Amino acid sequence: VEFDGPCMKTEVPGPRSKILAQQLEGIQSVNRMLDVYTQTASIPIGYNHPALTKVMTDPKNMGTFVNRPALGMMPPEQFFEKLVNGLMAVAPKGFSWVQTMACGSCSNENAYKAIFIWYRNKMRGTSEPTPEEVRTSVINQVPGCPDLTLLSFMGGFHGRTLGCLATTHTKAIQKLDMPSFDWPIAPFPQLRYPLDTFKRENAQEEAHCLEEAEDLIVKWNQKGRHVAGVVIEPIQAEGGDNHASFDFYRKLRGITKHGCAFLVDEVQTGGGSTGKIWAHEHWGLDDPADIVSFSKKMLTGGYYQKDGFQTDMPFRIFNMWLGDHTKNLLLTEVIKVIKTENLLDQAKRSGKVMLEGLYNLQVIPPPLPLSRARGIGTFCAIDVKVEDTCNNLILKARNKGVVLGGCGTQSIRFRPALVFTEHHAHLFLDIFNDAIAEL
Amino acid sequence: VEFDGPCMKTEVPGPRSKILAQQLEGIQSVNRMLDVYTQTASIPIGYNHPALTKVMTDPKNMGTFVNRPALGMMPPEQFFEKLVNGLMAVAPKGFSWVQTMACGSCSNENAYKAIFIWYRNKMRGTSEPTPEEVRTSVINQVPGCPDLTLLSFMGGFHGRTLGCLATTHTKAIQKLDMPSFDWPIAPFPQLRYPLDTFKRENAQEEAHCLEEAEDLIVKWNQKGRHVAGVVIEPIQAEGGDNHASFDFYRKLRGITKHGCAFLVDEVQTGGGSTGKIWAHEHWGLDDPADIVSFSKKMLTGGYYQKDGFQTDMPFRIFNMWLGDHTKNLLLTEVIKVIKTENLLDQAKRSGKVMLEGLYNLQVIPPPLPLSRARGIGTFCAIDVKVEDTCNNLILKARNKGVVLGGCGTQSIRFRPALVFTEHHAHLFLDIFNDAIAEL
Ligand code: FES
Repeated sequence: VEFDGPCMKTEVPGPRSKILAQQLEGIQSVNRMLDVYTQTASIPIGYNHPALTKVMTDPKNMGTFVNRPALGMMPPEQFFEKLVNGLMAVAPKGFSWVQTMACGSCSNENAYKAIFIWYRNKMRGTSEPTPEEVRTSVINQVPGCPDLTLLSFMGGFHGRTLGCLATTHTKAIQKLDMPSFDWPIAPFPQLRYPLDTFKRENAQEEAHCLEEAEDLIVKWNQKGRHVAGVVIEPIQAEGGDNHASFDFYRKLRGITKHGCAFLVDEVQTGGGSTGKIWAHEHWGLDDPADIVSFSKKMLTGGYYQKDGFQTDMPFRIFNMWLGDHTKNLLLTEVIKVIKTENLLDQAKRSGKVMLEGLYNLQVIPPPLPLSRARGIGTFCAIDVKVEDTCNNLILKARNKGVVLGGCGTQSIRFRPALVFTEHHAHLFLDIFNDAIAEL
Repeated sequence: VEFDGPCMKTEVPGPRSKILAQQLEGIQSVNRMLDVYTQTASIPIGYNHPALTKVMTDPKNMGTFVNRPALGMMPPEQFFEKLVNGLMAVAPKGFSWVQTMACGSCSNENAYKAIFIWYRNKMRGTSEPTPEEVRTSVINQVPGCPDLTLLSFMGGFHGRTLGCLATTHTKAIQKLDMPSFDWPIAPFPQLRYPLDTFKRENAQEEAHCLEEAEDLIVKWNQKGRHVAGVVIEPIQAEGGDNHASFDFYRKLRGITKHGCAFLVDEVQTGGGSTGKIWAHEHWGLDDPADIVSFSKKMLTGGYYQKDGFQTDMPFRIFNMWLGDHTKNLLLTEVIKVIKTENLLDQAKRSGKVMLEGLYNLQVIPPPLPLSRARGIGTFCAIDVKVEDTCNNLILKARNKGVVLGGCGTQSIRFRPALVFTEHHAHLFLDIFNDAIAEL
């Protein structure tokens, strides 16, 4: 049925949900709601899309569902075809290799490993290790386990396993008490919004951050703790939807010519909500990255890699399952739907309605302290000055049938699915407006 | 249909498979084979079990399959019930908490994190961090990111993400070129088989390893690099199916009373193939572990934890999906089948047939250099002295319709599903015998 607006019968959570919650069962709502958060940006084409239901009810897929294959050892019959029509059909320009993984964390962990292997091979001039390297690697010692580093950015989020966590710098609660690697961390530009109004100030801020990043690489290389790679998000999502200009990323790419690999983490930005499948495609670079990692909306995790990052020997990048083939089957359909239903263009159009609406809310009375509306496509956010007010607003919107999520300490982030139309954007703005009026 | 033996029409891979393999599609066989490897021990109750097909075709599960819920944020309606009838129905004695994860690596990574949090809270006397800890944690520095360590064993395998990898010590190829943590590593007993014949020698070897482990803990604690936990497998699987006596594990548990948490990694041993759901249940201890991690045959990943290892604040142990609810639905059925079909007893019986058969192969002519037959339940292995002969034997068996896998450098490991009967064990032995005769 056509979706013609939320329809609320109770407050949220509803009475049934409250009973379920008492059994630790959480939230099951009989309400119809407009989800502008979608399980943290991980539902690509909305709930219960018939194309996906069809995949799951197709008897010829049953074997994959009930007998999970170890993809590295026993690739199933359709594996190659699904990769060609799925992940490779939307590969960023210049990428001819893809490695599937199961979640954002193992995607980044393994991308880091691919970078370390590539860097050491380059240093050593060969992929053949010395006997001393072989011996020491097993016991965590140099030279087998070298003292290589990765450069990351303050406010960046790349996952929570210990390797990823060493490059994550968002909230203390995520990192407190965990042993970590002492690796270089550069400042991420703190821009003023709207970007067009503060061009000069923002350019200065970005220049300063780039200088720091380059300095760090040079210094750490000098002290023998080489920077093997730089890892960054096209929009810092968990960190509070922090943007940098496309120019910043182009210049950063230039700086990586100090011999580092450039890894663009598209776990949250990838999949179409910015109006392109990959947010980094907005930068307008011929050679924007060496590795691009993904998960969430892509259903499967994994990463694309340039020639040269493929491992030289089997089992260096490997794990038990290497993803879940069920997700590849679903993704192939998602990509078909994105193409046939022109969902990227729709994300651009809906995003425009949304961002303009958010701009208006910032300036029109009632003068609630809303600020820093920002976004690309439907990947938008707005700040609410007081943290309590922010949470309150999210709650009020929820009781009016709109699911939202916070990010950073006082931002609300909007992460609708790709089936979010201009009509939905207007609906959302109306309800959001009402919620604000009630504050 | 009742399985009455392999039926080979071609060599393996077959002609169709060869075509598919040329497209990178890998192996799809029209043969009927006896799988004694089961995707590295990850198919619990055999292929295409009707109970699992039923789960996947049940329309009321469709929502879970096509709309993957973020389990930490939006637990679905049946989440609690499925945990109670699934994971909690087979919880090891004394464990009242379970945390779901998606694979063996994130299970161990997060178990490690739970241990570090627990240990720091204990050291600090409170879960409330100092402002200095909060500030430094975000930038990877002490005291926020403390210099805690984990003790692991040579030959142990706990996963390949950077945290897990620091405790993995099997093959150089898995660790080479990866930055790691300098953490203590104890020797794992190198026993002689059959265990009964070499009781005295083995007891000495184990005493020596225990002494070393205790020494390391005391020394590392003294130098301020506290050992927060000890991590070990009940049988070192990837390392070559290395066993230690139950007495060794009981004494090791005693040594952890130096203030360390004791983490038993049951990723490969868990799920029933040893004749008990958890291999560590064979040790006969009232308090065998603080944390038990699992994956593979359990379909979902995760870990059980004792009281006190639950985190004090939300979002300290967290990730995007926290597993995949589809796997919980399947696991609940697997556990029902294990109970109603008495599959643990069957694993004991089939295992007995298998191990006795392997013993016989070691001593009866033709005198092939087979040795060190060992196992608990169907979780068995045997060594082939020469690496090439070992691979050759695996290949010959495969062409006769039996799928086997190697481990370590010259062991063959047997990892049948729980539906593997005594009849299958005899079939396997006959074919294995024939394969040996052809060498
Ligand atoms: S680390 Fe990605 S699924 Fe476990």
